[in-house]
Amino acid sequence: MGDRFAVTYRVFAGSLDEAQARAEGIALEQTVEIPRNVVPSGYVEDEILGRVEAIKPEGPGRFRAEISFSPDSAGPDLPQLLNVIFGNSSIQKGIKVAGLDLGTTLSARFPGARFGIAGVRRATGRRRGGLVAPVIKPMGLSVQDLALTARRVAEAGADIVKEDHGLANQPSAPFRERIPRLADAVAEGNAKRMAAGDPTRALYFPNLGGPTTALLNDAFFAKENGADGVLIIPGLQGFDALHALASDESFGLPIMAHPAFLGAHVLSEDTGFTHGILLGTLMRLAGADISIFPNYGGRFGFTQSECAEITSACRGPDGPGRPILPSPGGGMSVSRMPELMRLYGEDSTYLLGGGLLNYGDRIGDGVREMRQALDGVDT
Amino acid sequence: MGDRFAVTYRVFAGSLDEAQARAEGIALEQTVEIPRNVVPSGYVEDEILGRVEAIKPEGPGRFRAEISFSPDSAGPDLPQLLNVIFGNSSIQKGIKVAGLDLGTTLSARFPGARFGIAGVRRATGRRRGGLVAPVIKPMGLSVQDLALTARRVAEAGADIVKEDHGLANQPSAPFRERIPRLADAVAEGNAKRMAAGDPTRALYFPNLGGPTTALLNDAFFAKENGADGVLIIPGLQGFDALHALASDESFGLPIMAHPAFLGAHVLSEDTGFTHGILLGTLMRLAGADISIFPNYGGRFGFTQSECAEITSACRGPDGPGRPILPSPGGGMSVSRMPELMRLYGEDSTYLLGGGLLNYGDRIGDGVREMRQALDGVDT
Repeated sequence: MGDRFAVTYRVFAGSLDEAQARAEGIALEQTVEIPRNVVPSGYVEDEILGRVEAIKPEGPGRFRAEISFSPDSAGPDLPQLLNVIFGNSSIQKGIKVAGLDLGTTLSARFPGARFGIAGVRRATGRRRGGLVAPVIKPMGLSVQDLALTARRVAEAGADIVKEDHGLANQPSAPFRERIPRLADAVAEGNAKRMAAGDPTRALYFPNLGGPTTALLNDAFFAKENGADGVLIIPGLQGFDALHALASDESFGLPIMAHPAFLGAHVLSEDTGFTHGILLGTLMRLAGADISIFPNYGGRFGFTQSECAEITSACRGPDGPGRPILPSPGGGMSVSRMPELMRLYGEDSTYLLGGGLLNYGDRIGDGVREMRQALDGVDT
Repeated sequence: MGDRFAVTYRVFAGSLDEAQARAEGIALEQTVEIPRNVVPSGYVEDEILGRVEAIKPEGPGRFRAEISFSPDSAGPDLPQLLNVIFGNSSIQKGIKVAGLDLGTTLSARFPGARFGIAGVRRATGRRRGGLVAPVIKPMGLSVQDLALTARRVAEAGADIVKEDHGLANQPSAPFRERIPRLADAVAEGNAKRMAAGDPTRALYFPNLGGPTTALLNDAFFAKENGADGVLIIPGLQGFDALHALASDESFGLPIMAHPAFLGAHVLSEDTGFTHGILLGTLMRLAGADISIFPNYGGRFGFTQSECAEITSACRGPDGPGRPILPSPGGGMSVSRMPELMRLYGEDSTYLLGGGLLNYGDRIGDGVREMRQALDGVDT
């Protein structure tokens, strides 16, 4: 037992009565999953059964239904908490998760990011200004070619040298060959920076794209071979795999989460999660320190207000856990930086993707220009 | 290298030219994820880059684009294969995965279900007729109460005694207390059946709702304590966790997959996967022997044709791997069985959910009536 946690669902319904009935249906579906008339009295009915706390109209045909649940319905583990939040109801049209209030019991059970904004900044040594994260790609290049790029961008002032989320364990650059070599390359770049008097350093974040059951092993291999953090794809590995890494004290490195495979949860208007809940709140709940999402105006269709919502959800003071770094990617150019900095501010990680490759061998210039653009804007 | 695999995307576009451009975009996005002009020549361009093989109109504003990919882009593991199939493109509106042809290289790498329809039938001893799977619930009941229900339905002729997907590790019925007790209860029911001359037996499928990193441990605990199979939720644990279990020879029990948390992937018309691909093809690819989905006409909104599509995708002769059992649940009643049997036939697992609890202490009667209904219809 303990104080209840609350989920706010956007419910699509033609009337308040219908919304009320749908909310009562969600309260059943997400817990006992049996008809109301056969819910056992006592503990099951009083504690376990979801409770509709409030319903109010939100717009034409839309209502906000707040439903509270017992921490006992989730038990100790994240998969079942997510199952209570939106397991079966994810399969019913016209229901979207729009709010989550963990309450004190679950807030203690799921403390969130180990590093958060302040922790990642400390690791880079960059006290102010947006973080720059060039992406090492494409898949298919040799370890040697990838390492060359990693060294160049590290030397040029990258804060995070992030591997593409598509670098997994392909024959062209197998995981266990790639990680030590790229870590060395980033270290070389850092050594030159330090020699030049730069107090900041680049962090190397390899991608953990191997088997889910090997994730912890792969993460420790990365750590032991020089990684400063890791990239993980919760849509493919599960949010709980991210959570396992974040809560493993002996691992203790920052984690960047990538939204691949999760798109359907936000793209549909009447199912899934709001952008802020999925790419802000749930990422914080699972323990990510940095949450990647597609920037507006690039090749993905997120709007400016959806990106603002994600940013607020990542950095809001009310948790879950520490504020984390939103990390927009796509459509990043030096000329857009004044505009983008107004939205994302300095406590963001700016991903520099494929466009950077247009610089060819002078890829370091692309990183330096972005650094100057970020530092040149007063936030 | 090896022969390429092919994904068919439903692309929403205003013209064939636009569809062609979108398809070329997917081919880039899902592999190199860099602009076309900077794709390195040689191996990356010739082998790794996705290749648009064909585009044809499908309907107003809809096209089918077949794109082939190199097995090298996926490497050895399922997460990266799924990432190539629909990682970043999942975040772009107007793209839905509608077909998957693994080719011979990946078919050998991902052999699919260990048991399939024939293997699960062998384990139950029921050679003909639909399988009946009552669900043990609700969460919040004690182990003792859950065990009582399990014994009753096993004795009454259940083929699979399936735990509710919401039974995880809650304090009312912790995983490690619950599994041995329910396994014993099912064994008691089976002993009475055997004594009565019944050649079939009930299989006990507990739910693995614990931490993802403990999944293999939990699965082996279940096996060692009398489980005959397991239930897993790939939307929460990841498809690769299912795959790890299915491909672990020393585990070697059948696996039932539950669609919780996956709804958004099929509910939206213009993103995610078709019903057949998600709940048939991908479940087979990952190694499920039984795939649960919401029956039409129940409280979920799937249509009859969507359920038929899932059923065909589960049982089609062309793989991936062995044909598996579709498992409709929701809205199952004796009176609907003639109709449902016409759609699902005998090679299906019919889930009996919360409605069964209306029978109270006579829950066995509900199972027996369903058994008679299934046996009474000539398929």
